[in-house]
Amino acid sequence: MKHQEFVDFANRLADIATAISKKYYRVDNQEVAKDDDSPVTIADKEIELKIRQAIQQQFPNHGIIGEEYGNHQEDADFVWIIDPIDGTSSFIVGRPIFGNLIALTHHQKVILGIINQPINQERWLGVDGSGSWFNGQKIQTRNCQKISQAVLSSSSPFFFKAQNKVIFEKISELTKYQKIGGVVYGGDCYAYGCLASGFVDLIIEPELKVYDFASHIPIIENAGGIITDWDGNQLKLQSNTKLIASATPQLHNEVLKFIKNTKF
Amino acid sequence: MKHQEFVDFANRLADIATAISKKYYRVDNQEVAKDDDSPVTIADKEIELKIRQAIQQQFPNHGIIGEEYGNHQEDADFVWIIDPIDGTSSFIVGRPIFGNLIALTHHQKVILGIINQPINQERWLGVDGSGSWFNGQKIQTRNCQKISQAVLSSSSPFFFKAQNKVIFEKISELTKYQKIGGVVYGGDCYAYGCLASGFVDLIIEPELKVYDFASHIPIIENAGGIITDWDGNQLKLQSNTKLIASATPQLHNEVLKFIKNTKF
Repeated sequence: MKHQEFVDFANRLADIATAISKKYYRVDNQEVAKDDDSPVTIADKEIELKIRQAIQQQFPNHGIIGEEYGNHQEDADFVWIIDPIDGTSSFIVGRPIFGNLIALTHHQKVILGIINQPINQERWLGVDGSGSWFNGQKIQTRNCQKISQAVLSSSSPFFFKAQNKVIFEKISELTKYQKIGGVVYGGDCYAYGCLASGFVDLIIEPELKVYDFASHIPIIENAGGIITDWDGNQLKLQSNTKLIASATPQLHNEVLKFIKNTKF
Repeated sequence: MKHQEFVDFANRLADIATAISKKYYRVDNQEVAKDDDSPVTIADKEIELKIRQAIQQQFPNHGIIGEEYGNHQEDADFVWIIDPIDGTSSFIVGRPIFGNLIALTHHQKVILGIINQPINQERWLGVDGSGSWFNGQKIQTRNCQKISQAVLSSSSPFFFKAQNKVIFEKISELTKYQKIGGVVYGGDCYAYGCLASGFVDLIIEPELKVYDFASHIPIIENAGGIITDWDGNQLKLQSNTKLIASATPQLHNEVLKFIKNTKF
């Protein structure tokens, strides 16, 4: 496997996240306030802190971008991007489909990503040019080429606003499960793992931050899938972005074409 | 514990459901068509069939109401109500938050209920007059008495229509996590387990069938919670119903009052 040293180290970071997540899972009164009123827990903070310490000890020249403690040397050749708990609302309600997200970039390209589900002991790993794995087993996306056959997932309807909402709803009405709403909600990072493993075909999200999606890029792409912004451009690591992930390029193109033709 | 013989037998039924669910979990191409276009899998059918056989062998005088194979002796003194897989969309995408639901009624009152999550080996049990348990440990709901402090969950926004949708959205805007949408979606039966265990405070659903909620009644009520229709009436076992489940009577009354005052 390429980047073996970094893969081993990233797995160690995921093990750190697992231990702390388990300690705080289904324990009450663990929330702390955040400026934007989004929930954050003691677990979020402790996981990110321990991971940052481990990185700074092992690779002092590497940069770090984390959800809770900001940027450190973000212009370095190698930069780690960390979301200590993605799907915080699932974590808070005691639902084991949140994840610890770890990504490593080299010159602005994500070369490895991990989605770690600490309670179920499930780990998705993607390594640029080598492949994607679920708990050590190679995985690939499903061969779904049409919206009408696609299982669609998204984190929450709440985040879609105005035109984005209209476009998203129109697409959901064309999917395989249109009669029951067309969207499997509430997945967060777990849905991307399910896509890479071949059980979800399409994910559409309105506005994600870099630590929400960086780890997903190598996991999806090296499993045969494709992930871009709503215009079909490669995802930029600096900013908020709207995102589409698909099991196949054919499905992806059909979705992009639909969005282009639905513009206002 | 009251009804020990029936509790033991219900646990055996849940074990049957566990074995079959595991066999079909994350196996592709297992869907079969259903008249109303909602997804149903081979697993749904096999679980319900095996459970019905077990009931008919052990208690030939008991009735059975099941999602997939309909009613049998539904006027009997004791009636089992079965949803072989609740949260089929989670099952289909490989997400371990679906459940096998088993309830037993005596003279139209649910005397025991099980929510069984077969992949994580998690089981909620409620027994009328005895208590509620999660994997053998007694549980109780959280002491949340106000909408403004409540964590709200619901299966999908899709099922809310017209006035129900307006009321639901107004309530979600008053909850603890209003700034991030106020609703944890995608839970199905798992959310009721989380409520009984004290991590969710409020569940509001627009239209559920009897096999979707029968098992939840003793689990919620014997953990200290309350579950009624949107008018505050006891849930009827015959028909579709809109449903509210709350961690405390105080929270429940605040929600009922809000709904009454928001009527059109």
